[in-house]
Amino acid sequence: MKLASLKEGGRDGTLIVVNRDLSRAARATTIAATLQDALDHWEQAAPRLNALAEALEAGQIDDAFDLDMGRLAAPLPRAYEFVDGSAYLPHVERVRRARGAEVPESFYTDPLMYQATSAGFLGPRDPILVANEDFGIDLEAEVVVVTDDVPMGVSAQAAAGHIQLVGLVNDVSLRGLIPNELAKGFGFLQSKPRSALSPVFVTPDELGDAWRGEKLHLPMRTWINGQWFGEAECGVDMQFSFAELVAHAAKTRPLTAGTLVGSGTIANQDTDRGASCLAEQRTVETLRDGRASTPFLKFGDSVRIEITDAAGKSLFGAIEQVVARYGA
Amino acid sequence: MKLASLKEGGRDGTLIVVNRDLSRAARATTIAATLQDALDHWEQAAPRLNALAEALEAGQIDDAFDLDMGRLAAPLPRAYEFVDGSAYLPHVERVRRARGAEVPESFYTDPLMYQATSAGFLGPRDPILVANEDFGIDLEAEVVVVTDDVPMGVSAQAAAGHIQLVGLVNDVSLRGLIPNELAKGFGFLQSKPRSALSPVFVTPDELGDAWRGEKLHLPMRTWINGQWFGEAECGVDMQFSFAELVAHAAKTRPLTAGTLVGSGTIANQDTDRGASCLAEQRTVETLRDGRASTPFLKFGDSVRIEITDAAGKSLFGAIEQVVARYGA
Repeated sequence: MKLASLKEGGRDGTLIVVNRDLSRAARATTIAATLQDALDHWEQAAPRLNALAEALEAGQIDDAFDLDMGRLAAPLPRAYEFVDGSAYLPHVERVRRARGAEVPESFYTDPLMYQATSAGFLGPRDPILVANEDFGIDLEAEVVVVTDDVPMGVSAQAAAGHIQLVGLVNDVSLRGLIPNELAKGFGFLQSKPRSALSPVFVTPDELGDAWRGEKLHLPMRTWINGQWFGEAECGVDMQFSFAELVAHAAKTRPLTAGTLVGSGTIANQDTDRGASCLAEQRTVETLRDGRASTPFLKFGDSVRIEITDAAGKSLFGAIEQVVARYGA
Repeated sequence: MKLASLKEGGRDGTLIVVNRDLSRAARATTIAATLQDALDHWEQAAPRLNALAEALEAGQIDDAFDLDMGRLAAPLPRAYEFVDGSAYLPHVERVRRARGAEVPESFYTDPLMYQATSAGFLGPRDPILVANEDFGIDLEAEVVVVTDDVPMGVSAQAAAGHIQLVGLVNDVSLRGLIPNELAKGFGFLQSKPRSALSPVFVTPDELGDAWRGEKLHLPMRTWINGQWFGEAECGVDMQFSFAELVAHAAKTRPLTAGTLVGSGTIANQDTDRGASCLAEQRTVETLRDGRASTPFLKFGDSVRIEITDAAGKSLFGAIEQVVARYGA
């Protein structure tokens, strides 16, 4: 099934089920008011939401309505936890190579992951509001999964069973603020503002063969100002599966239902597939040409992030955002 | 007023008001079901909660009951955001000195702060469950404030008006996991598991003269296994006020109502006042004796964290936790 949240009813939106081709939707509020509410009682809620989704698909819901992407909040407008991995090592290798550094051996066995902000996710059509272009505004196209309650110390094998939803995230990054912040030693804070989520989150079974080994085997398509920017294969060069990432996050704490676990920017060894963030593209240019030629995002620039199935159908809907000056 | 949450009614507990001497309480559910709910509508809820608290103080609530600390969850059993500062520079200076490093000049003007986990806070009497003593289990006694909705880019001056509640946090740290994790460059994750909050959170006006300049001017009293461990002055050597910490956190994003902002471990230049975490104590020993003699916490050890007013009355209730083996 496919789930989304309308921008109505309060801070957490209103839960809806969406049909497979993303054209029609129905309120799910008789089952759960919000997606967080559904995740809090997933075992009870999921079968009922599934039944509602099947009825919608069959055209049996009287008060179903046409889906308007502009009315959608993030599926989880706010969440209790977002931990973001960096599972595509080609990106890490390339960035290190550009500055003449080695990738530590441990990076191939121990996932790199950071605690991200989850208190507010942008809707799929919300603008990216930034105070200053000089912050170095960048997109990061990623896959994200949502878990139910995960016990502390879970194995990767058991973690697989706790992945309940899959979606996309644009992990907005402020590159100009990163060097100083990371130099302080405590990770990202100001350099990672609010991220945007895809219009819908879907259960793994909706992805069919494209979801195997707890990885998504489809290209991540990104555009900047309407121009093709990348189509890196999510299933290629992902060093750690989502099950391994969930297990890593849960090593010393349980994960609360509704936790988001991100893949990190999709990046392949094959640079012909383009990039999923400007920092990546600029690194490729630096290694190739001695300098980066593609600028970071400016006010007025637009980004589009989408994954389609083999038949070209959008699976999660597209994230489409414009960068704008905060307070303007 | 003083607010707390009973361990009943669901994942977010049940909101209660507590009287000044922490002996009596009354359910506040006719005003807001949970503390998060109250914070989501703070302008409407706060005056009504205040009136209820005054009625409780006056003995006018028929179904008031004796407060049992063992029945309390964290005031916010789960929250959307927790950012933790490191505002006491003596700690930073000492740790750096112990390893022969300088404190960067910028640390005195630019707060050190990290994105912490907020998805689950331990109740004030909940055990600290850790899988392995070798993780290097440590307490960190800190003051924490809770904000309402804070706009992006808020000034420190304006941020002061968004501090609605004050409390204590035991920011549990796994010292053995920190070096490897920080060496990876993306901050804390596994090394900072769930933290515990004090039994009650209070509005700043409850603190009277002890709350000025957006700092708490009282000693943080800590005990380990019933032995005095420290009484560092929270109002001394705090380089940044809570207003400045909130403004730092909100530089590139708004803060959602219910965001917790921590002070970092309370530490003074005056080492006679003891420490608020074992890492600090061990650093003092290393600088003095050439080696650390105080071990980290073992299974069965207990910690107690409390702040009392000038008359010796507990302001927030005590955090009292025992360390225990996870899964035992």
